[in-house]
Amino acid sequence: MLRLVGASAYRSFRNLWLLEELGVAYEHFPSKPRSHEAQQHNPAFSKIPVLHEGDFSMYESAAINTYLADKFRGREGVPDFVPAAGTPSRGRYEQIVHTLQSELDAQGLWIHRKHEALKGLLAPAAPEAVAHARSHAHKVVAVMTGVLHDAGGEHLLGDFGMSAADMLFVHCLNWGEGIGWFQPFELKEEGLSDTQMAELKAYLARCRARPAYLRAKELP
Amino acid sequence: MLRLVGASAYRSFRNLWLLEELGVAYEHFPSKPRSHEAQQHNPAFSKIPVLHEGDFSMYESAAINTYLADKFRGREGVPDFVPAAGTPSRGRYEQIVHTLQSELDAQGLWIHRKHEALKGLLAPAAPEAVAHARSHAHKVVAVMTGVLHDAGGEHLLGDFGMSAADMLFVHCLNWGEGIGWFQPFELKEEGLSDTQMAELKAYLARCRARPAYLRAKELP
Repeated sequence: MLRLVGASAYRSFRNLWLLEELGVAYEHFPSKPRSHEAQQHNPAFSKIPVLHEGDFSMYESAAINTYLADKFRGREGVPDFVPAAGTPSRGRYEQIVHTLQSELDAQGLWIHRKHEALKGLLAPAAPEAVAHARSHAHKVVAVMTGVLHDAGGEHLLGDFGMSAADMLFVHCLNWGEGIGWFQPFELKEEGLSDTQMAELKAYLARCRARPAYLRAKELP
Repeated sequence: MLRLVGASAYRSFRNLWLLEELGVAYEHFPSKPRSHEAQQHNPAFSKIPVLHEGDFSMYESAAINTYLADKFRGREGVPDFVPAAGTPSRGRYEQIVHTLQSELDAQGLWIHRKHEALKGLLAPAAPEAVAHARSHAHKVVAVMTGVLHDAGGEHLLGDFGMSAADMLFVHCLNWGEGIGWFQPFELKEEGLSDTQMAELKAYLARCRARPAYLRAKELP
């Protein structure tokens, strides 16, 4: 039995969304970051999410999604959510996931969280770093909107269809909107056209209307 | 024919090392970050490395290595450098690579590069963020040294053997040592024992003595 540790208000949402898309059985423990439970499940970093599967445990939300999507490739009745390893489509998936994790999450949103929103809990205030992180995040969203456009506007991987990369991008956009980033004027300053802005908006609306997304949103 | 764009003094070294381990034919273009060539090969970010394979192109060093290692799995005469997709060993690989990229590279070493070493070229000085990044990086190296120890001390993935995760870790350690981080006293403050310090040192020496590593180091 799969067990996913982490509340849906955090990065764990990415994994809950994929688990709901896959339709597999799992237990959910809605622990918060730095909680006693998080510390027990992830002694190294006290971070959530953590995935358990029998004796095997792992952390890092994007890594968990790639693992789960690979593990359930070819599952009857559901599409694949990552391309087969070693194909150019998988290379594109890896590129997008690493860009989102390194450039948008770690260097963008997380800089805001640790150097501003958490008010000194993990790190001192660093307003210059946060200001740069915000403008950098807008550049990355503009680049990704270009990737989406070049792939046909429906999914980041184009003809492959919905993938775990889309779940990561949408979650990052949710997070950014929640802290007041990604305002239309900021994205226009990065060179996005009205057509691209409309394409991004329609993409988000479609992703957020998926039944699995809505079920994951309802989880604690 | 594979073409790898990026000088060996940068993150491209990770890919050059793997290509040398794999023993595949490739062309090497030793371009620097933000150069005219980097801008042409990667219009989105002007970053290197970039991998070309016919019409297919991708960027992000860790993504390129996962792609290449998957592509050449089962190649005659060389071991595999990533575990098969969907296995727990691959889950561990994904976790380690994402931890190294997000926690050690993006939130550690790269914060120093952009907010200090590049002297305002990409971002303003942010001394509080750099100081935090340095202490955070030491914590991550301590965690990874624990992962190495728990895996038997030879490779991060234990019995699987040498993987692209080791190449990423060793490159990050090289980078950190080059800027004066990862001093023994800093790692001891993170709780590393003398045994673990010796294990890390021996691991590094073994990795750095590999013929493929030494060939990649000689490249421009």
